Amino acid sequence: MIQEDIRKDLQLKWRRLQENMSKTGADGCLLSVDVNLYYVAGRVYSGYFYLPAEGDPWLFVKRPNGLTGDQVHYIRKPEQMPELFAEHQIPLPKKLLLEGDELAYNEYMRLAAAFKPEETGNATALLRQTRSVKTPWEIEQFRLSARQHILTYSEITGCFRPGMTDIELQYEIEKRMRKNGSMGLFRAFGANMDIFMGSLLAGDNAETPSPFDFALGGGGVNSSLPIGANGTLLKEGTAVMVDMAGNYTPYITDMTRVFSVGKLPEEAYRAHQVALEIQEAVTNISRPGTSCAEMYNLSLEIAEKAGLGDCFMGTKQQAKFVGHGIGIQINELPVLTPRSKEVLEPAMVFALEPKFVLPGIGAVGIENSFLVTETGIEKLTIFEEEIIRLD
Amino acid sequence: MIQEDIRKDLQLKWRRLQENMSKTGADGCLLSVDVNLYYVAGRVYSGYFYLPAEGDPWLFVKRPNGLTGDQVHYIRKPEQMPELFAEHQIPLPKKLLLEGDELAYNEYMRLAAAFKPEETGNATALLRQTRSVKTPWEIEQFRLSARQHILTYSEITGCFRPGMTDIELQYEIEKRMRKNGSMGLFRAFGANMDIFMGSLLAGDNAETPSPFDFALGGGGVNSSLPIGANGTLLKEGTAVMVDMAGNYTPYITDMTRVFSVGKLPEEAYRAHQVALEIQEAVTNISRPGTSCAEMYNLSLEIAEKAGLGDCFMGTKQQAKFVGHGIGIQINELPVLTPRSKEVLEPAMVFALEPKFVLPGIGAVGIENSFLVTETGIEKLTIFEEEIIRLD
Repeated sequence: MIQEDIRKDLQLKWRRLQENMSKTGADGCLLSVDVNLYYVAGRVYSGYFYLPAEGDPWLFVKRPNGLTGDQVHYIRKPEQMPELFAEHQIPLPKKLLLEGDELAYNEYMRLAAAFKPEETGNATALLRQTRSVKTPWEIEQFRLSARQHILTYSEITGCFRPGMTDIELQYEIEKRMRKNGSMGLFRAFGANMDIFMGSLLAGDNAETPSPFDFALGGGGVNSSLPIGANGTLLKEGTAVMVDMAGNYTPYITDMTRVFSVGKLPEEAYRAHQVALEIQEAVTNISRPGTSCAEMYNLSLEIAEKAGLGDCFMGTKQQAKFVGHGIGIQINELPVLTPRSKEVLEPAMVFALEPKFVLPGIGAVGIENSFLVTETGIEKLTIFEEEIIRLD
Repeated sequence: MIQEDIRKDLQLKWRRLQENMSKTGADGCLLSVDVNLYYVAGRVYSGYFYLPAEGDPWLFVKRPNGLTGDQVHYIRKPEQMPELFAEHQIPLPKKLLLEGDELAYNEYMRLAAAFKPEETGNATALLRQTRSVKTPWEIEQFRLSARQHILTYSEITGCFRPGMTDIELQYEIEKRMRKNGSMGLFRAFGANMDIFMGSLLAGDNAETPSPFDFALGGGGVNSSLPIGANGTLLKEGTAVMVDMAGNYTPYITDMTRVFSVGKLPEEAYRAHQVALEIQEAVTNISRPGTSCAEMYNLSLEIAEKAGLGDCFMGTKQQAKFVGHGIGIQINELPVLTPRSKEVLEPAMVFALEPKFVLPGIGAVGIENSFLVTETGIEKLTIFEEEIIRLD
């Protein structure tokens, strides 16, 4: 069913999950959400994945037909799982972890009714914690994504024609993304995190508040998807912030660069330099053990010292984070917020994105993806960081 | 906040929801899922929408900043809602409907704990039932989507170059979609319904079973998104089924056409004619009151009579439906399945998609979107229905 290197990677993930699970006192966790199934099984399928506190997992598959393997059992409905446990004389879990922040209420209740555990706990928390520290195979996927992400960004100036709108530029970039291997679909954690392939913000559209928990907003093309490009004409003096997804493998890199049509007002270059200073200062203190709150607070301090506190991470609505873990979803742990309790750990991968929104100009700033090493961090998305002329 | 025609449409939707809610004995429903918020509020936001059994709704908004209106109250957390009820001397609902098939378990429990209703019920069922019968404004949106959907399909032959793969053809079509106004994002109901902008299936990739509850499968580009185009070379004699989304407004039309590289074997044209016969026969019996089960069973009967039962809606894995409601999501009610209890009602909008998968050739068949009128049905996606040469 799967290659040997992927099998070894999956076994490593199961062991890590079991280590973290042992702290919860649970006897097993049952997973069925796409990103969690991909993490533990190496593929998305319709069905369930049961990992006991000790020993090998079971795959319960509804679809697709034709999956094979020692651990694979086909079922039509979830109630067959406890029957199969009984058949194989495996005790049912007394404490069972279910994906409480992801599973729909009715599905959760159905699984709980089928297994009748004495207690349930939150598999979402377990998975998000475990997924925050990446395996060597996962890190390799990020490197592959970064390479293609950079390739696409190197093609952006070639996408521009005078008189274009933000949306026209965006779909030219989308085509290059797909040509360079983007899987298109862009996964985020949480309810209603609607977005399509990333964000491109030009001029004052960067100020428009959005409903979503992304770094910046934008009005979008209609009120069903109120985020991102809104049809703004890319005229002389406009800053264009490109934050398009690095989903070239299932592991997403995150990277923002600012482009300009013609020359921008001086304040734009100045604010952009402050964003680069924040990146420099934060990356200088980043190593295993660094507090994620400190990373945010240092960023805000530098922004405020430069007199840019009011336009840091937005104006009308300001995001209260300056970075976040990345992985199968764009918003994994840790989160760089003012009161985060998290610290960096080796093999975490995160995006740092200090940005400023300047009324009348647009958004400036930077975003790169970083791997936490044993002694510091490594930048994965190496590409020109100054404001790049489109024309 | 919103235009007058949209306000009238929203009021009509609230009245219909209240009519259907009265049958459940509920005192109110609380909504927060993107598609439901768009339905009742005309925009997606982060927050909640409370519709009482009688009277006007309340909008509780977390983000974005700046929404206005009589019914708009800003909150930071859901627990503030019952406090606001008390402040305005409005009784708390004894029976409260929550989105049980959509809300994450922990969010559902939090809302139930905040409101402490004596009883909860399923707002998902209420919304899906109500949303299945469209309003005049919604029908207009489908007409706008259909027009752009047809325009894009008329540009498909111009996307083809000899030596292309299915993915290369798909991203050329995606670019035309975006140029013609596609919002990109493609919404489906249910867990793990991963797909990107639609499906393009060439040759034997059409046989590959997928985990998802879409009509056909395909291997996809990686095991994190195992559906659709997989890099198949578009060589002479290949059937290419294009089922790309009609998301040009928030109301999605659904439309499939088959293209060929060169001439296909005779059996492909024969099977394609059988699909057109099924469409003809089913549309002939379709009117208010027609059983959705009958529509499926008639389709299967014609397929079997033609000796094509084994490749109807797939081979290795066969979908057990031949059509489905469409709307803000691609898979709304009703569903045309063997044992559906639903009947067509005026102003329902549905897709009918009889398809056959032919080993060594690919998928053939047809899909169109239909509006149920007072006396019959009207085809919304009028475009060439024979197999179209790409070269």
